Amino acid sequence: MGKPEIAKLGHVAIVTSDLEKSLWFFREVIGLEETDEVDGVHYLRAWGDFQHHTLSLEQGESGYLKHIGWRTKNKEDVQQFKQLLEEEGVDVTYLPKGATPGIGEAIRFKLPSLHTFELYYDVERPPVAEHRRSVLKNQTYKSWAKGVSPRRFDHVNIHTSTEVDQTYDFLLEKLGFKLREYLVNEEGNTIAGWMSVTPLVHDVAVLSKPNLPTPARLHHISYWSDDTQDILRAADILKENGIQFIGPGKHGISQAMYLYVMDPGSGCRVELFTGGYLIFEPDWEPVKWTMEERSLGNTYWGDSVQDKELNNITIEAK
Amino acid sequence: MGKPEIAKLGHVAIVTSDLEKSLWFFREVIGLEETDEVDGVHYLRAWGDFQHHTLSLEQGESGYLKHIGWRTKNKEDVQQFKQLLEEEGVDVTYLPKGATPGIGEAIRFKLPSLHTFELYYDVERPPVAEHRRSVLKNQTYKSWAKGVSPRRFDHVNIHTSTEVDQTYDFLLEKLGFKLREYLVNEEGNTIAGWMSVTPLVHDVAVLSKPNLPTPARLHHISYWSDDTQDILRAADILKENGIQFIGPGKHGISQAMYLYVMDPGSGCRVELFTGGYLIFEPDWEPVKWTMEERSLGNTYWGDSVQDKELNNITIEAK
Amino acid sequence: MGKPEIAKLGHVAIVTSDLEKSLWFFREVIGLEETDEVDGVHYLRAWGDFQHHTLSLEQGESGYLKHIGWRTKNKEDVQQFKQLLEEEGVDVTYLPKGATPGIGEAIRFKLPSLHTFELYYDVERPPVAEHRRSVLKNQTYKSWAKGVSPRRFDHVNIHTSTEVDQTYDFLLEKLGFKLREYLVNEEGNTIAGWMSVTPLVHDVAVLSKPNLPTPARLHHISYWSDDTQDILRAADILKENGIQFIGPGKHGISQAMYLYVMDPGSGCRVELFTGGYLIFEPDWEPVKWTMEERSLGNTYWGDSVQDKELNNITIEAK
Amino acid sequence: MGKPEIAKLGHVAIVTSDLEKSLWFFREVIGLEETDEVDGVHYLRAWGDFQHHTLSLEQGESGYLKHIGWRTKNKEDVQQFKQLLEEEGVDVTYLPKGATPGIGEAIRFKLPSLHTFELYYDVERPPVAEHRRSVLKNQTYKSWAKGVSPRRFDHVNIHTSTEVDQTYDFLLEKLGFKLREYLVNEEGNTIAGWMSVTPLVHDVAVLSKPNLPTPARLHHISYWSDDTQDILRAADILKENGIQFIGPGKHGISQAMYLYVMDPGSGCRVELFTGGYLIFEPDWEPVKWTMEERSLGNTYWGDSVQDKELNNITIEAK
Repeated sequence: MGKPEIAKLGHVAIVTSDLEKSLWFFREVIGLEETDEVDGVHYLRAWGDFQHHTLSLEQGESGYLKHIGWRTKNKEDVQQFKQLLEEEGVDVTYLPKGATPGIGEAIRFKLPSLHTFELYYDVERPPVAEHRRSVLKNQTYKSWAKGVSPRRFDHVNIHTSTEVDQTYDFLLEKLGFKLREYLVNEEGNTIAGWMSVTPLVHDVAVLSKPNLPTPARLHHISYWSDDTQDILRAADILKENGIQFIGPGKHGISQAMYLYVMDPGSGCRVELFTGGYLIFEPDWEPVKWTMEERSLGNTYWGDSVQDKELNNITIEAK
Repeated sequence: MGKPEIAKLGHVAIVTSDLEKSLWFFREVIGLEETDEVDGVHYLRAWGDFQHHTLSLEQGESGYLKHIGWRTKNKEDVQQFKQLLEEEGVDVTYLPKGATPGIGEAIRFKLPSLHTFELYYDVERPPVAEHRRSVLKNQTYKSWAKGVSPRRFDHVNIHTSTEVDQTYDFLLEKLGFKLREYLVNEEGNTIAGWMSVTPLVHDVAVLSKPNLPTPARLHHISYWSDDTQDILRAADILKENGIQFIGPGKHGISQAMYLYVMDPGSGCRVELFTGGYLIFEPDWEPVKWTMEERSLGNTYWGDSVQDKELNNITIEAK
Repeated sequence: MGKPEIAKLGHVAIVTSDLEKSLWFFREVIGLEETDEVDGVHYLRAWGDFQHHTLSLEQGESGYLKHIGWRTKNKEDVQQFKQLLEEEGVDVTYLPKGATPGIGEAIRFKLPSLHTFELYYDVERPPVAEHRRSVLKNQTYKSWAKGVSPRRFDHVNIHTSTEVDQTYDFLLEKLGFKLREYLVNEEGNTIAGWMSVTPLVHDVAVLSKPNLPTPARLHHISYWSDDTQDILRAADILKENGIQFIGPGKHGISQAMYLYVMDPGSGCRVELFTGGYLIFEPDWEPVKWTMEERSLGNTYWGDSVQDKELNNITIEAK
Repeated sequence: MGKPEIAKLGHVAIVTSDLEKSLWFFREVIGLEETDEVDGVHYLRAWGDFQHHTLSLEQGESGYLKHIGWRTKNKEDVQQFKQLLEEEGVDVTYLPKGATPGIGEAIRFKLPSLHTFELYYDVERPPVAEHRRSVLKNQTYKSWAKGVSPRRFDHVNIHTSTEVDQTYDFLLEKLGFKLREYLVNEEGNTIAGWMSVTPLVHDVAVLSKPNLPTPARLHHISYWSDDTQDILRAADILKENGIQFIGPGKHGISQAMYLYVMDPGSGCRVELFTGGYLIFEPDWEPVKWTMEERSLGNTYWGDSVQDKELNNITIEAK
């Protein structure tokens, strides 16, 4: 029996201090579909997402990230991860099937960075109402119904003020992520790592930031669109809605096009994302970026991410 | 020790009856880069391909496919596949390192469909000349140098007049491919299958065609571009070069945009390809298309693939 | 005092046998904005149109074109055209200001092709409701609110079974249009002409068709989008709404990209249109296309317009 | 006999201190075609330009603009403009046919801003070599041969430290331009005006800048591409060639997408341009922008033009 494996990023659970505003932002402006509402928690996904939800939103005192959910490759991986992590002294919480709507039995634990990960295998695929169902058998909803209308959930970007190497080790050694690209500071320490369990350049990026308000922060979640033109159209839509953003631009790291916009309810930043490359090579040599190359890595061209006040805002990860 | 695994599609080896014309087509019109020429064989790749070559071209009496190459996940997988296949009675040829420039030790064998597959792990990554090297550390060549300029090699589509179920079994059971989408005829038999070892909807498609000139045929190889606009620009380029094509259009199956154009030297068709979806779900239920839905599956919109004389031409796979 | 001049295409007045369906099609699927409803007539325009309306829709027994409206360059041109046309024996009807909501005093007359033209100068520019008004001072509505969301009204295409040379002469000699491109049959007769008063390749195309149900027909009206990607996105939207169309493709004539879709209420075809070239040269030599070149002129690439049953349907022009 | 009229922007004549570098930039990177070389002056145009050249380049001590050429509507307009301007006390130089290759008889004079305008009617349309000629009868060259490959020449942007109102008056009153959009400072003075003789928002923009090295300066010339994706592709091409630029972004004024890049030989800035709107309304009310709205007018979204050192560099207009 092999090591348990993570198959893919599943969802994020976000708490917002203004649920109504967040729902407007994610449903009307970003254009996500609502699958379900249970006990005041709203479950959303993009038109091309295949599982029950990729984002949940609920009202709270402040905006923060509850946890990041991941699907395992096999059903038994959930229990195997539980055992393996507990053997390593990690505190693991078990959630029976149905603890979260649409999700089977799950475990939760904290990374050394203090962000909470959730692992599960079983997901529900609720049927879509006739008038919203795609005419394509391999697509969940009709596309282009409202707002930006991205295809699918893509990745998360988290910041930590803890000793970041422990988190890289944890992700690479315990959870099976592969390092794809990384940034080293003048002392030769890795201060940013882009990691994935899929051929995407990253399912998760972890950045070391010494001066955070709390040790674990969420910088952004990301939804994918198919074409660069979709990102430019998003810029028009956001301007017409009076919403500030950074971008559009193109990253050197990942080669993907970006636009960063913040949910005015929760403060959760969303990266609208397209392009970039896929890593199918089994012996991929992680790409190293130095501080001198950082600017090119962040912004190959376009509206720069760096030196923007707006770019420094993050929300707490509890 | 687990089962050996294939990581990705590697390359195709094509023989052409007019090498000069094929080189013009692939280098000037499609815009591939030439890595090397050894003993009259030309090794080409796209600007975003990471290994030595994804296409080889050499002069012959007629145009045909020699073999389709695949990289394994681990170095030892090559020997393990050899052992496993021989135990199953498959005739396996061993090629030492260097038998093909840029490729390490390899094995070759025929599918039940009579197409030759080659498996290897080691690849060379020859350095790129200064003036053609990308300023991006994660990209091989400068993009957009000539012609269509696709990013990377994507998939192959093969036809067979042999009993196709044997080939599906072989690919799924012996080689670890996953069935992603498939077409069944009125009798309930699968006559087309889209399969992958990656999250792409297909690395290879295998179609059952009863009346082929020879039992094993190549319908097309495919190169990927990032944006739909790149495919439309390709249409302009091809028209200006007096080259016929089918498309542009959008498949229902895979949801990808296509344009099919034939190398005037070898007769090898190239599908210029973008968009579509990725399958990260570990429990993907293969999508079934019936003969009634076939037309939608082939062409969701655009210039139809079906009923085009040009679409029936294939080249031999030896 | 110089000759009176037409400045631009203004609007079309369409009668539909199913107003509800037509309103759904033009408002929800195409994504036009409704300016006003007066006496059961609905006045619509695109987000980038500057005058009161570019399309009117009203219930009738059958779908047909009432008239095509044009703005003159100067206020006095309306009266001058009246005088000039009457001197030529043309039957001219005068309409006082307000006969049509949003439009000042106007004249109406029939071309030799029996299509009705309306000329006027004064237009109203009704203010847009706050929540729909663009944040840009030079744009009428927020863009991308619903459906295809084209920018502006572009051109009309009319068919006639009358002697077409008389209509070409009328348009060129009496109304000041310039011939930009034209198609000649084997006998050397012009059977299609693309004409404009602006630098667009055509504001109006007139085609000779011997076997029409009635002598004057409307083939299509056209709305412009800025990018080719907008046309591909439109194809997705139409498929998801279960609406048939021809295209996308690119014309040789005009070099513009097209997609033809029919309003299911009125039968009025809409060409979604982008790209192409502008003619600023004052001594433009009309581009002649022969029957041999016709196919290239109609469809440079993409889903062909020719040989499509759907393409032969036209609605009456009364 | 009516007033003489200008039909369109024709060309700019640029002197460069490094001809080889400028030719590399305009031919290889921008991708213009060379029509002719006479006496060391190189004549260039885009694949969709219809006249002999839209740019000339020649070696000099320093980079500067010689003149901006415009085509008149009629042949006799050249002499009429000469007479009209001389009556107003403007110093007019007459150039016989052939003084400039490809251009008929012409006149030159200085605007109050001290920029030199040239007016002419006759132009040559040299045949294009077979292998570069488009398969389309309405297009000059095959598109997409090299580099950015824009379609056509679009507009010029000039700066002056002279009293700018005199130049606005001159352009509007004497030359027949129409004011389309303008920027006023806190004192209510117009300090930037976008003007055209065509439905383009501007053929020329004139900006008042008090502190220029010399009174008349060229800020940029502009070439048009059809799609936003072409501008993003241009950004890739420029980065790979190690050339700095500002953008991509979208202007509020004109609604067009931009990217500004400087010819490393002459210092002449080129704006790569697409999108935006056309003005067909005969009674267009010029759009007024205040200093408060200036930032939105300059950059609706994207990499900002303002506060960029690079954006302040201009070259002399002699």
